Amino acid sequence: MKKNFLILYFLLFIVSGVFAQQKPKYVFFMIGDGMGLNQINLTEVFLAAQEDRNTVFPLIFSTFPYATFATSYSLSHGVTDSAAGGTALAVGKKTKNGVVGMDSSATTTYKSIAYAAKEAGLKVGVTTSVSIDHATPASFYAHQSSRSRYYEIGQDLIKSNFDFFAGSGFLSPNKNSEKKEAPSLFPQFQKAGYTLAYGLADYNKKKQTTDKMILMNVKDEDPSSLKFAIDQGVGDLNLAQITDAAIESLTKDNDHGFFLMVEGGKIDWSSHANDGTTTIHEVLDFNEAVKRAYAFYEKYPEETLIIVTADHETGGVAVGNGGSRLNTKLLANQKVSQGTLSKLLSDLRIAKKEASWNEVKDLLMENTGLFADVVVSKEEEENLVSIYNKSFVRHEEETSKSLYANDDKLASESIKILNKKGSVSWASGGHSAAYIPVFAIGAGAEKFTHKMENTDIPKKIAEIAGWNF
Amino acid sequence: MKKNFLILYFLLFIVSGVFAQQKPKYVFFMIGDGMGLNQINLTEVFLAAQEDRNTVFPLIFSTFPYATFATSYSLSHGVTDSAAGGTALAVGKKTKNGVVGMDSSATTTYKSIAYAAKEAGLKVGVTTSVSIDHATPASFYAHQSSRSRYYEIGQDLIKSNFDFFAGSGFLSPNKNSEKKEAPSLFPQFQKAGYTLAYGLADYNKKKQTTDKMILMNVKDEDPSSLKFAIDQGVGDLNLAQITDAAIESLTKDNDHGFFLMVEGGKIDWSSHANDGTTTIHEVLDFNEAVKRAYAFYEKYPEETLIIVTADHETGGVAVGNGGSRLNTKLLANQKVSQGTLSKLLSDLRIAKKEASWNEVKDLLMENTGLFADVVVSKEEEENLVSIYNKSFVRHEEETSKSLYANDDKLASESIKILNKKGSVSWASGGHSAAYIPVFAIGAGAEKFTHKMENTDIPKKIAEIAGWNF
Repeated sequence: MKKNFLILYFLLFIVSGVFAQQKPKYVFFMIGDGMGLNQINLTEVFLAAQEDRNTVFPLIFSTFPYATFATSYSLSHGVTDSAAGGTALAVGKKTKNGVVGMDSSATTTYKSIAYAAKEAGLKVGVTTSVSIDHATPASFYAHQSSRSRYYEIGQDLIKSNFDFFAGSGFLSPNKNSEKKEAPSLFPQFQKAGYTLAYGLADYNKKKQTTDKMILMNVKDEDPSSLKFAIDQGVGDLNLAQITDAAIESLTKDNDHGFFLMVEGGKIDWSSHANDGTTTIHEVLDFNEAVKRAYAFYEKYPEETLIIVTADHETGGVAVGNGGSRLNTKLLANQKVSQGTLSKLLSDLRIAKKEASWNEVKDLLMENTGLFADVVVSKEEEENLVSIYNKSFVRHEEETSKSLYANDDKLASESIKILNKKGSVSWASGGHSAAYIPVFAIGAGAEKFTHKMENTDIPKKIAEIAGWNF
Repeated sequence: MKKNFLILYFLLFIVSGVFAQQKPKYVFFMIGDGMGLNQINLTEVFLAAQEDRNTVFPLIFSTFPYATFATSYSLSHGVTDSAAGGTALAVGKKTKNGVVGMDSSATTTYKSIAYAAKEAGLKVGVTTSVSIDHATPASFYAHQSSRSRYYEIGQDLIKSNFDFFAGSGFLSPNKNSEKKEAPSLFPQFQKAGYTLAYGLADYNKKKQTTDKMILMNVKDEDPSSLKFAIDQGVGDLNLAQITDAAIESLTKDNDHGFFLMVEGGKIDWSSHANDGTTTIHEVLDFNEAVKRAYAFYEKYPEETLIIVTADHETGGVAVGNGGSRLNTKLLANQKVSQGTLSKLLSDLRIAKKEASWNEVKDLLMENTGLFADVVVSKEEEENLVSIYNKSFVRHEEETSKSLYANDDKLASESIKILNKKGSVSWASGGHSAAYIPVFAIGAGAEKFTHKMENTDIPKKIAEIAGWNF
């Protein structure tokens, strides 16, 4: 009988383990903008290829105990944009492409999970590697009929009263959506109690004396986005640093937990440009941010939930374009983003009116490996030369436009050749309808086992955390 | 105290439920050859589009409680073929492309999970919509240095002593891999105790009087594969019927359960041809087979495990090729596979030496919707006319070769246009390195929650079922 009791108590112990699942006190919601399954796969294959290994080197989130996928279509379109995609992830409802945090007719505002967390007493952070008023981060705090109402989105930030914001900056702090001059957002942020920090050094100076912070890039940098990871140097602000700062800020004098959204915003941008190597570096950069969340999870495994997902896939990228052997190793020859390559070509054009094809060729070789490690066919070279003749000799403008860039055609054609040789194929310069990945670890992660709607993701998080959503 | 006891007993009851997880007695291992996540997505989007719905209509396996994904690379290549891919799924070990059920040097034979099931006392079935000696099914029962050793693979079938085989037929029953005449496999099968059934009627006649069966297509049909689902008519053998027959045969006079592998083999073939509509119909055809397994699961939910996966993705297909609006509805205009369209064009060419462009155009219109629902640009029509002039007027052969087809160029170009208008993009005519989907339901399905290696899939099944593997 005593033995039976022991067994019962043992069982009770197990049961209590099963049922006493703690609600997460710390929730990380990490979004790779444009990061489809194939962007992840490409990065993992590339990492292994650098060591001549025919395998995949998994990213940190790829090793999470739960990995599944979700739909991404919006209410209006088979292929979502980042506004409807971000809104679905933020508020748990599908809406029309272009709309932020509202219904399709922009008459009803939707409450995001960030507001639900705030109401539940948690601190809230919204961070990104692009501008803070961009569609994905905006979906968590703003309610606007159009993603391009940047000024008004900035005003919504104030209303949110969230605790921590970070990103490159703001796109239209002095002009409203009617293109009219308007009072600068920055004093308004300050009036609302936000400390503005420009860069990490400034953040470190100010962090102890404030509870509400907006961390931006240093003032002389582009407010529209952080540099592409592949172009970053020492001292450039990056997403992992932002994540660290967010965790530090949100845990300061706070026992009530936090909800932190972190967006890797430029996986999308490089994928729009069909720039494989830059995309890989963006995914790795995002992975570094996830590593920071994971380190936090390791400290508080019972109280932390990390979700890693995407708003949509961009570019319809495929790994493998015919043969069985992958040559992704070649992609490492690319040293700068397509945008920076454009700039280098433009600089050369300005510096030297009569730059020869060989000089241009050397520049391409140095920055992409073309004509060196990357074998260029006669036909491909002829094509490049004809573009060179047009832009360098005849000075006719030749650019290749994608959503976030208007690149030199010589740059985009070179990157195109490198991608082809590097076994990467792109369906288009737009988004695709591909299912989005969903990875989970920590308290409540076991709810993420099956294919779901993108709108289920915040619903599940709120359900697990017990928030009113 | 009494109340406490009641609680304890209640907890005990729950615990016993958790721990008394029955081992599956019936295991379905269903493989969509070439069925990547995007092939599934495309089909689900297409189904909804037929009803003008901007959503997805899920396939049966897409609703399973567990959905994740796995690597597909082989030991030798970043992009696997069906031999190494099938072997990974069958034996739990990666090998070289081209090898079936052996190590890369073809010196060691690997035991497949089908053998493990057989050893554990279960009946075993291996079925497919292509030939029974094709790489994927062969991986479960054969051990050969090359997938093209069809005759020797057939001989391995006899050694396996498995209980049920089904597919279109055998590719080389009278010639060995050295292209030499050899004793027909069929009498050898019969000598080994197998009843040969040609078509469903023959199967129904013979099923009661035999324990070991090889079900093939009727003798005047192509032994290399069942017809594409889109081309099938009433009376044509299909994969769902094969699945029904397998379940019926494997449960006859058998209390020890079964392991049944079902391959939808031609999702791969149509994807090699970049034929979107035919691919959709193949996925739907495979889904019908899964429905039969699911109906069985509903009868024995505690004892059945269904795994649905793929050996690799084919074609690098993307849904969406630029715009946000998907036009997959247009794909329904296609009435026959690209192969059958080729045949129709060839028939017309033979029947009418001087078939006019308008006659050809009518044929294309009728079978693909081009020039009717599907708007064709001037440039596209000019391209089609120039191919017509070459093949119909100047009688120069014009074909477009893919792995399993050598199609008329007019057919392949027409399908190409339809795919483009229907928002479908293809990276190549080969396989890609994309992660493969893994869906699970039933006893032990909860083990399939995280990204894994393809080789983990059979290992997990064997572990769940308690087989020596």
